[in-house]
Amino acid sequence: MPEYWSKKAKSLVPYMAGEQPMQKLIKLNTNENAYPPSPAALHAIQGAFANLRLYPRPDADAFREAAAKANGIAPEQVFCANGSDEALALCFQAFFDPGVPIKTMDVTYSFYPVWAQLYGLTLDIVPLKEDFSADIQSMEGAQNVVLANPNAPTGIALPTAAIERIVQSARGAVIVDEAYFGFGAESAVPLIHTYKNLVVVRTLSKSHSLAGLRAGYVAADEDLIRALTTVKDSFNSYPVDMLAQAGAAAALEDTAYYKENNQKIIDSRAYTVRELQKLGLSVLPSAANFLFVKCADAAGVFAALREWGILVRYFPNGRTADFLRVTIGTREQMEAFVAAMKGILHDNGRGRK
Amino acid sequence: MPEYWSKKAKSLVPYMAGEQPMQKLIKLNTNENAYPPSPAALHAIQGAFANLRLYPRPDADAFREAAAKANGIAPEQVFCANGSDEALALCFQAFFDPGVPIKTMDVTYSFYPVWAQLYGLTLDIVPLKEDFSADIQSMEGAQNVVLANPNAPTGIALPTAAIERIVQSARGAVIVDEAYFGFGAESAVPLIHTYKNLVVVRTLSKSHSLAGLRAGYVAADEDLIRALTTVKDSFNSYPVDMLAQAGAAAALEDTAYYKENNQKIIDSRAYTVRELQKLGLSVLPSAANFLFVKCADAAGVFAALREWGILVRYFPNGRTADFLRVTIGTREQMEAFVAAMKGILHDNGRGRK
Repeated sequence: MPEYWSKKAKSLVPYMAGEQPMQKLIKLNTNENAYPPSPAALHAIQGAFANLRLYPRPDADAFREAAAKANGIAPEQVFCANGSDEALALCFQAFFDPGVPIKTMDVTYSFYPVWAQLYGLTLDIVPLKEDFSADIQSMEGAQNVVLANPNAPTGIALPTAAIERIVQSARGAVIVDEAYFGFGAESAVPLIHTYKNLVVVRTLSKSHSLAGLRAGYVAADEDLIRALTTVKDSFNSYPVDMLAQAGAAAALEDTAYYKENNQKIIDSRAYTVRELQKLGLSVLPSAANFLFVKCADAAGVFAALREWGILVRYFPNGRTADFLRVTIGTREQMEAFVAAMKGILHDNGRGRK
Repeated sequence: MPEYWSKKAKSLVPYMAGEQPMQKLIKLNTNENAYPPSPAALHAIQGAFANLRLYPRPDADAFREAAAKANGIAPEQVFCANGSDEALALCFQAFFDPGVPIKTMDVTYSFYPVWAQLYGLTLDIVPLKEDFSADIQSMEGAQNVVLANPNAPTGIALPTAAIERIVQSARGAVIVDEAYFGFGAESAVPLIHTYKNLVVVRTLSKSHSLAGLRAGYVAADEDLIRALTTVKDSFNSYPVDMLAQAGAAAALEDTAYYKENNQKIIDSRAYTVRELQKLGLSVLPSAANFLFVKCADAAGVFAALREWGILVRYFPNGRTADFLRVTIGTREQMEAFVAAMKGILHDNGRGRK
């Protein structure tokens, strides 16, 4: 019996992160970047070793400035956090009030309902259309909004014009979670100059190969950034450690390195789509580093892929139960995935490597 | 006007961390360890570079196991966090309910009222005695308790027997914040086997010279650890990054290195106390890596020390207004501090170096 748990703790149903397997598997389950981080980022981390006994800069100056520069905005329009999960959790506290509904979609990042629960907030859930595209019209005129663009686990991106309609018509804050930016989608960041209620959240986990470092940031009007700083300073003085600050700043500056890698991922995504279509499978149009693949027996294929040494992600509840989410790995990994899918679908799994 | 701020954000008065100066000063203001982290910790951090594109272990296994081993407890009795500030913020959410008073002291870590405000909790503040020691009797029989041991900014430690009286008589959870463990104080960790309501919080910032890395942990009964994990997984999947996990684990294993450094700090503390007493100043008995020094004109001495290139901490409100908090640096830094104090007190600051 949880005798000393708070009522809040007793009521929570936490988010379940994708598995981090201990054994060697081809890991296409948590949307990490297929390529290692920039050598410049690692070099910068090492350069920060000398000061590790000291507290980091509470506002992560260098990281903040690099993120501003990378997006053509001012440092005052940037807030840095311990990954975009922390950034989003702080946004939920800074911009949303209990009792005021927050529009979001039924199939999207499953952490949104968890934060709503943690902070006593109400979600107003708008279903995606039959083809898993967003129902923009139903998202318009909201009080508050949180959406992922590209969406996850679908991979489908909205054009900036659609985001603008939602932001323009909203009475309160609109959070656009661009965790999967960098693989072909448009960004809403330029709109922050026009719309004082727009909050764009980014992570370096995917686009910058730094999932292990925990670095995310928010781009928004200065006044919204001040709200985030106030909430952060009421929670944790230094959530972004010195090594993460140094590594994130250097990574954001090394644009050429990441552009080349992310183009390879876009190319491998195109290859994988073609091969899956040849197998008669349908795949949602993705602007992210993963694919949402329709499978007749998704649970069975998920299990069979694991037998082949390949880990993907399966969300067994509701409308996602007929799909597998497959991270785009290296070309070699995607060839192994395609071979496994051929084996599983055509040989009923007997062609095990 | 904060148009899009939540009511919560509008109501918050955040914690003010000590200054991180950009220019070269002798920095005795934020209680960092005087010595660099263990070379083994830096080596371990470098060893984690190879996997930085992947997400870290959500439960920080290696760090958790090392913390358990260092304290002679089980890994299931340990929860790892992004510094002890995050650990404490999660404890406030996991163990305290709105409307249920939490006993704490009037002069203590000033983040406690900030978390109470953030999470809508009520503090029941017990004043320290005239000599700044804790009023144990008034802390007994509480519903919930949060206290720092050694206390900050006083540096005064309670013996385990006093902690036990508070824990034994409390009806709810008791948080003992041992941020300054490692410099001579007794620890309450062994009591977690007996008391299911005891939560001990530690940081590696001070004792292990890793303020820049953000690593803290909680030692408590398994059931309390599960509550913390539930709240953490409703907030941020991976708050402790891969480098912090590796560095913290290695640091916790390198006990000989830290024992030697922390003994030097204890010795420099004794030297500084002696020298300050020779100057006619009174100093509270400290079991931490700082001293709370009584000064007739504390604000003036604070400003004069800065002129001498030495930064200490001054809390100008209430009972702390006649004191300066001085971090124990290296022996050389403390000699410079003593020389500056001599100059300031005896030459009216004219003896500027």
